[in-house]
Amino acid sequence: MNKEIYNALLSLRNNSISVDEAYNSIVSLYNSDLGFANIDMMRTERTGCPEVVFCAGKTVEQAETVIADIHERGKPVLATKAGRVLAKRVQVRFPEAGYDELGQILSLGTLCNEEKRQGLIVVATAGTSDLPAAHEAVRTAEFLGSRVKLICDIGVAGIHRLFSRLDEIREARVIIACAGMEGALAGVLAGLVSSPVIALPTSVGYGASFGGLSALLGMLTSCAPGVSVVNIDNGFGAGYQANLINRS
Amino acid sequence: MNKEIYNALLSLRNNSISVDEAYNSIVSLYNSDLGFANIDMMRTERTGCPEVVFCAGKTVEQAETVIADIHERGKPVLATKAGRVLAKRVQVRFPEAGYDELGQILSLGTLCNEEKRQGLIVVATAGTSDLPAAHEAVRTAEFLGSRVKLICDIGVAGIHRLFSRLDEIREARVIIACAGMEGALAGVLAGLVSSPVIALPTSVGYGASFGGLSALLGMLTSCAPGVSVVNIDNGFGAGYQANLINRS
Amino acid sequence: MNKEIYNALLSLRNNSISVDEAYNSIVSLYNSDLGFANIDMMRTERTGCPEVVFCAGKTVEQAETVIADIHERGKPVLATKAGRVLAKRVQVRFPEAGYDELGQILSLGTLCNEEKRQGLIVVATAGTSDLPAAHEAVRTAEFLGSRVKLICDIGVAGIHRLFSRLDEIREARVIIACAGMEGALAGVLAGLVSSPVIALPTSVGYGASFGGLSALLGMLTSCAPGVSVVNIDNGFGAGYQANLINRS
Amino acid sequence: MNKEIYNALLSLRNNSISVDEAYNSIVSLYNSDLGFANIDMMRTERTGCPEVVFCAGKTVEQAETVIADIHERGKPVLATKAGRVLAKRVQVRFPEAGYDELGQILSLGTLCNEEKRQGLIVVATAGTSDLPAAHEAVRTAEFLGSRVKLICDIGVAGIHRLFSRLDEIREARVIIACAGMEGALAGVLAGLVSSPVIALPTSVGYGASFGGLSALLGMLTSCAPGVSVVNIDNGFGAGYQANLINRS
Amino acid sequence: MNKEIYNALLSLRNNSISVDEAYNSIVSLYNSDLGFANIDMMRTERTGCPEVVFCAGKTVEQAETVIADIHERGKPVLATKAGRVLAKRVQVRFPEAGYDELGQILSLGTLCNEEKRQGLIVVATAGTSDLPAAHEAVRTAEFLGSRVKLICDIGVAGIHRLFSRLDEIREARVIIACAGMEGALAGVLAGLVSSPVIALPTSVGYGASFGGLSALLGMLTSCAPGVSVVNIDNGFGAGYQANLINRS
Amino acid sequence: MNKEIYNALLSLRNNSISVDEAYNSIVSLYNSDLGFANIDMMRTERTGCPEVVFCAGKTVEQAETVIADIHERGKPVLATKAGRVLAKRVQVRFPEAGYDELGQILSLGTLCNEEKRQGLIVVATAGTSDLPAAHEAVRTAEFLGSRVKLICDIGVAGIHRLFSRLDEIREARVIIACAGMEGALAGVLAGLVSSPVIALPTSVGYGASFGGLSALLGMLTSCAPGVSVVNIDNGFGAGYQANLINRS
Amino acid sequence: MNKEIYNALLSLRNNSISVDEAYNSIVSLYNSDLGFANIDMMRTERTGCPEVVFCAGKTVEQAETVIADIHERGKPVLATKAGRVLAKRVQVRFPEAGYDELGQILSLGTLCNEEKRQGLIVVATAGTSDLPAAHEAVRTAEFLGSRVKLICDIGVAGIHRLFSRLDEIREARVIIACAGMEGALAGVLAGLVSSPVIALPTSVGYGASFGGLSALLGMLTSCAPGVSVVNIDNGFGAGYQANLINRS
Amino acid sequence: MNKEIYNALLSLRNNSISVDEAYNSIVSLYNSDLGFANIDMMRTERTGCPEVVFCAGKTVEQAETVIADIHERGKPVLATKAGRVLAKRVQVRFPEAGYDELGQILSLGTLCNEEKRQGLIVVATAGTSDLPAAHEAVRTAEFLGSRVKLICDIGVAGIHRLFSRLDEIREARVIIACAGMEGALAGVLAGLVSSPVIALPTSVGYGASFGGLSALLGMLTSCAPGVSVVNIDNGFGAGYQANLINRS
Repeated sequence: MNKEIYNALLSLRNNSISVDEAYNSIVSLYNSDLGFANIDMMRTERTGCPEVVFCAGKTVEQAETVIADIHERGKPVLATKAGRVLAKRVQVRFPEAGYDELGQILSLGTLCNEEKRQGLIVVATAGTSDLPAAHEAVRTAEFLGSRVKLICDIGVAGIHRLFSRLDEIREARVIIACAGMEGALAGVLAGLVSSPVIALPTSVGYGASFGGLSALLGMLTSCAPGVSVVNIDNGFGAGYQANLINRS
Repeated sequence: MNKEIYNALLSLRNNSISVDEAYNSIVSLYNSDLGFANIDMMRTERTGCPEVVFCAGKTVEQAETVIADIHERGKPVLATKAGRVLAKRVQVRFPEAGYDELGQILSLGTLCNEEKRQGLIVVATAGTSDLPAAHEAVRTAEFLGSRVKLICDIGVAGIHRLFSRLDEIREARVIIACAGMEGALAGVLAGLVSSPVIALPTSVGYGASFGGLSALLGMLTSCAPGVSVVNIDNGFGAGYQANLINRS
Repeated sequence: MNKEIYNALLSLRNNSISVDEAYNSIVSLYNSDLGFANIDMMRTERTGCPEVVFCAGKTVEQAETVIADIHERGKPVLATKAGRVLAKRVQVRFPEAGYDELGQILSLGTLCNEEKRQGLIVVATAGTSDLPAAHEAVRTAEFLGSRVKLICDIGVAGIHRLFSRLDEIREARVIIACAGMEGALAGVLAGLVSSPVIALPTSVGYGASFGGLSALLGMLTSCAPGVSVVNIDNGFGAGYQANLINRS
Repeated sequence: MNKEIYNALLSLRNNSISVDEAYNSIVSLYNSDLGFANIDMMRTERTGCPEVVFCAGKTVEQAETVIADIHERGKPVLATKAGRVLAKRVQVRFPEAGYDELGQILSLGTLCNEEKRQGLIVVATAGTSDLPAAHEAVRTAEFLGSRVKLICDIGVAGIHRLFSRLDEIREARVIIACAGMEGALAGVLAGLVSSPVIALPTSVGYGASFGGLSALLGMLTSCAPGVSVVNIDNGFGAGYQANLINRS
Repeated sequence: MNKEIYNALLSLRNNSISVDEAYNSIVSLYNSDLGFANIDMMRTERTGCPEVVFCAGKTVEQAETVIADIHERGKPVLATKAGRVLAKRVQVRFPEAGYDELGQILSLGTLCNEEKRQGLIVVATAGTSDLPAAHEAVRTAEFLGSRVKLICDIGVAGIHRLFSRLDEIREARVIIACAGMEGALAGVLAGLVSSPVIALPTSVGYGASFGGLSALLGMLTSCAPGVSVVNIDNGFGAGYQANLINRS
Repeated sequence: MNKEIYNALLSLRNNSISVDEAYNSIVSLYNSDLGFANIDMMRTERTGCPEVVFCAGKTVEQAETVIADIHERGKPVLATKAGRVLAKRVQVRFPEAGYDELGQILSLGTLCNEEKRQGLIVVATAGTSDLPAAHEAVRTAEFLGSRVKLICDIGVAGIHRLFSRLDEIREARVIIACAGMEGALAGVLAGLVSSPVIALPTSVGYGASFGGLSALLGMLTSCAPGVSVVNIDNGFGAGYQANLINRS
Repeated sequence: MNKEIYNALLSLRNNSISVDEAYNSIVSLYNSDLGFANIDMMRTERTGCPEVVFCAGKTVEQAETVIADIHERGKPVLATKAGRVLAKRVQVRFPEAGYDELGQILSLGTLCNEEKRQGLIVVATAGTSDLPAAHEAVRTAEFLGSRVKLICDIGVAGIHRLFSRLDEIREARVIIACAGMEGALAGVLAGLVSSPVIALPTSVGYGASFGGLSALLGMLTSCAPGVSVVNIDNGFGAGYQANLINRS
Repeated sequence: MNKEIYNALLSLRNNSISVDEAYNSIVSLYNSDLGFANIDMMRTERTGCPEVVFCAGKTVEQAETVIADIHERGKPVLATKAGRVLAKRVQVRFPEAGYDELGQILSLGTLCNEEKRQGLIVVATAGTSDLPAAHEAVRTAEFLGSRVKLICDIGVAGIHRLFSRLDEIREARVIIACAGMEGALAGVLAGLVSSPVIALPTSVGYGASFGGLSALLGMLTSCAPGVSVVNIDNGFGAGYQANLINRS
């Protein structure tokens, strides 16, 4: 129940305000921020993630200001694509800040208590070079309250490595398959497990990889159902979506 | 428990076969089909979808033969990208076959009992022209055992239409956002709801749509987290993934 | 003033309803359609174009139903990418319907009275083959209430043809430059006139035109300022935007 | 009236020159620069923008020379894509030069008096990272004589932010929608306002953004009419076109 | 000497018109068609090709009307991308019309007398499938007055075939190298002859040919200097350019 | 030893011809065809494939003429991309012609005796829809003298199917991996076998397959070494290359 | 014979374990690593190349650790895309390491004894700028046990250079054709020799080379059969595949 | 007449060598370099350009060695894409070397005497930023013996600038039109002059210029005949082709 509307009605009922005053009060809520701030608050509760700071394209000063502002309002912060210089500055100011340099991701606080953690998310990578995107996914999902396990270097060029970890992978409620080059890991996994697979293409590779395009197209056109795809190198998006599914 | 292995062991225990016979019997299973048929059976139980027939690129004769073969082995069949000619031939042979011409999708039997149906999947379309992909998604998810609701024509060009259906959309455990052109529906929905959004780009549009590329890129690069994407016009993949999430 | 909210408040004031009844009445408006229907009505008044039917990707039956529905609610209708079969069916039902086959555009009624027509829009084409997109632009802008003049075949390969029509072109408040191939007409015009130029790339051409891509890129990268671009073959969008500018 | 032609005719009439001298005098104007300088002068009056210097691809020396040359002829100068080194050198030489480092845009003088300023241009950005292109647009339109208001960070991922600023946006005669990634801001705004929207795609994003391609395609294929698009990161072009429309 | 300007000056000198009348008379020439019609006439004499009709994108009726109109004004006509239906209709009306079905090119009259023909143009094709573009080039250059020799099927996959025709090829003043697939013929020829090579990529091929893109890129990036390229399947453009060079 | 040169020298030695006659005789060989006909004959012996007719882009008449000409010179013929109409006409004329309609490939005669057949080529397909390209590969390699085994429908979405055929696949000296969509079959196989893998991408798929581009890029960027790739749908090229390797 | 399964059966036969214990023991093998570790060992023996380290995308520390680990387990190591800094660090630690700076490739040990070397691989380059990819190919094939000959600068722009080396090239059992720009070398060579050609496109070039795309497409669409293609700049892949063919 | 063959025949005739000696002598010429060296010498005479050094992709040391080697054999050298460091090193060694830093082009000697210079080549640029490619073209054509005139900054955004230089442009026998962005200069010029136009697209621009792609496509698809195109930024190729045409 929206208290501001209800109070206005009570005041009207009590004759402490006129019909016109009540009308204006209610309509101003509707016409300005209240209605959509309501949406906003719903959004906060719903996503468990009030503010994520995308640092690419921001100056170090801009990014630092935004992070400090959120933190000082008492909310947890997650900042992605955060370079080492920014991280140093934030950690000087807030020593409790955590920074994963490989994943270029920085956090202040967390959104969950230990007991909220639920189903397992497995982040599987094809190779060592996929680790930056994978780390971004791991840190994001952990920040949002999921348990995460990282399983590295099980690309399909040596498919036995994948099979030897299959039992662990099958424990996941959601799987993030992180691969560059031809991106076949997603489709092969989706054919072997019963969980939804979030495919995370990476820009690992050269030549006809065209910055991750080959992995992206391969994952989109996988003949194995049960795969959906996020943007190239978007570890944050993969971790976020996996957490949503895990929580649902 | 695998009965063939267990029976071989019992026979050995009962001395009705020798150690070498038992060994050969077990290893032949492992070395040939049994082991992987075992995987196959696990797969069947897991996905709830033993065989899906992708009819594009197959002749009508090939597709009909595959469908009949699965059906006659007593299993439910789902056939996608199925043209009207194929559907007519299948329905003459198996009058119980269902066909959704808009979605170009044909089914024989179903994988679930009424009581298995669980959380709701909402399939939302930006416009009427997105209905073919949306229908494919709806029929796929229903075939796999999910309850599905189709909400049409709520594209962002008239965003009030989207808001007027928001309560219904928020009831979904998973949302499929189906749109062509700029594909903005996915990102806007993801910013308004708490469920994971499966973005289904369609080839609706012309010119710089480039056969769905504009919607695909837009959905992949959405600044709203909580979106993952399937191939252009891949209603089957969207319905399948949504059902996996719904069931998890 | 929103009458429904105001009446609810009056009723509360008159004690004919309770506070809770008033609250529910107001909030139901807010939570459902009223607020956004308000937006809707503003939209109708604003754009002067309540409903435009994009027929591509719709079946003939779907398109006819939508057109008839709008028309029977007493509103003017504009339908784009409308094929000849659809047009015939609509004209049988509503003989007053107008159809421009070259532009594949169909109209029932108009949005303006003669006296509303204002500044001139010039639609200039590089060649005869650009006429389909140009016609769509002309009919759209006329339907929305603008005066329009079509000047054909003044492509830059014979730039004297352009100069001989320059006085006419300069009378326009807005210019639509419609060209395929290298699309140079837009930039050349923008360097010669004082009005904003809406560039309308067409898919005319072959080979490295790549379905209009060459014209699109050329128009986007024109070194002459004062050009903005719509989608390839999007005569409707060009006419609509030109009318908005003309009216502003 | 062209004074040089008229004076030649007067001289002929006064017999101070012969027919052949008059002929040569007039034709030399026509054959060389006069005729087109006439066009040039019309152009100057028309666009209110005699010379804009595009600094990318020029050496610092070339750019500085051109800027100084225009300035010293007494005309206002606008220089885009101007780096910090160039700006420093120009400001040392002409301390009155203004420089917006975020927008990489430099100006010397202005084209308008305060009283010429007319309708409002709103420049709306989806996120903080879109500010460089937005600043270029703001400074360009101001230089050309328009009032401009910058509204930041109202991207569609949190659509309530957009709604809370809608009243301000609706005051604009022209809107510039500046966004990277999926670029949905343009289409959503166009569905909510009655003014023409100039879509300004930015190269903000990574992976499948492909340097702004995703935003560009999304904006071109928007299903909301009333949108036209300029080149990726072309804040200058957007500001210029908005000013043309504002002035028309 | 422009007679109209001169006569106006004479009239002024003779006092038969006033200075203002003379001024208006001269300026009206400048402002309207006279000056640029002058350009037009120069163009006609220069190119030897008053009107070429590009039939693609025109209806049969439009194309026939344009062809008949030019022909009836007594000028030779060349019509490219002309289908068989159009050709039949033109030949019924003008039996002297020539039609090359393979090249989809139609002509009425010619631009040269036998004695004007000069240096030789060789049109070389990689394979039989390149003949449509090659024929368009041959007929265009012949229509414009050049001698042309067609040498077929000398693609680099069997480079001895090319060598056995090398003496003939070396007689050419200009060579058109017509090839699809990898388009290597242009670069190999340019390394063996002393004449400029016009590379004519064709859309022959499939898969990664992408409609002629592979040949186009290959020809543009040839490491042999002396190659310039026209659009894919643009036999007309190749023949036209070769004739210009031949004539220069 | 070249008899024609040697005989000329003997004649010179015997004084039956002069030095100039000998010189001209030798140089004419060099300047005309002899040298390169020599290359030609080496080519015939080497490739075992004197003439392959690529029928796409040829008229039925052209293709039939070429096929008949080669056949009547007593040589075996292979014709690819041969439609049903052409095949019918050839079979009426030469009833011994073989035609594989799925592979669109036609043959007259063969290049090998049974005893020449050597190592095995395995052609593996991901799905039924890949059969056209696979058949073209099979027929080409058989025509050229290799033993070939076709193994269908072992795509990685159900990787157990692949494992159950692995022993058969491992018998091959060369493997052709034929797949559309993400094309992962090539990389997975290359990680499991010791033979070179020729990857044959097919245009099977839709949406982001972009006519085979996804499979092509995936195969080119496979992280498993031992893969090389031919053009999309180029079954002929794959079969030809496999036979070369098999024979070496 | 698998000892663990056999021993379990013997124990059952001897009554030292129960049927259930035997069952669990066997099935646990099947479900975990044993079967696929077997695949692993086959892989090692088969490829003659236990581990190749792809250094791009790894930190110097990661790469060094992996190289040292393999080396210290007594196996030969090949590391590709290895920068100078990494090479220095490895050579300080293991002075016997070989480094080819042009090819950015580092090796420790080798996989063959001198007597294992067999057929010749020729690596041919179009120009000096193709040497980096060529060196990577040469070093890879040598490491894997093949004899290799490098023939430089025989691009088709001066085709006589190619002919003067043709005898040497014909001695090869496999040819690697390494070229950027239009990549014609592969097709021309394949038309002149009897060996399979591995086409290695390089990113040499600018403009429409688009990072090697022109060479890649040209090589894929070559009209000469007998060519298969690896990724752009993938010298490692070319050398690996050539060695596989050479060894087969 | 080939002296080596003729002398061998004379020696045979004089009995100073045997038939076998004569045969071996002649065949060795034919089988090795002689025949193709003959081609080589023809090539040198023909192109007037024995060696051009493409420095991109070469180390400074490699480039310097090649340049010095050619120079020391007494031949003129042209080196393109030559950086400042290389130029400094060459000029220290050979002070007579000329270097155009803007065009990144270096020359030692020249191929012509003053009296050989013939028809004029005009190199026209759209803007100042196109100068690097234009300078490369100018220096190349001058080196090869043509007279060249550079006309800058006549892009179509201010088409009067082009008209005021038209008389100069029309004096050219060949025109090089050098432009980035939409590249419209080539088509506009071709419609105004009678000479062949070599279109030289440049990578000037940003966003949808995609590194010169927009100019390239625009020039290829120009509706004005008489245009052929070289690679993006390939000033050398444009100058070379223009000189060939000029000389023919």
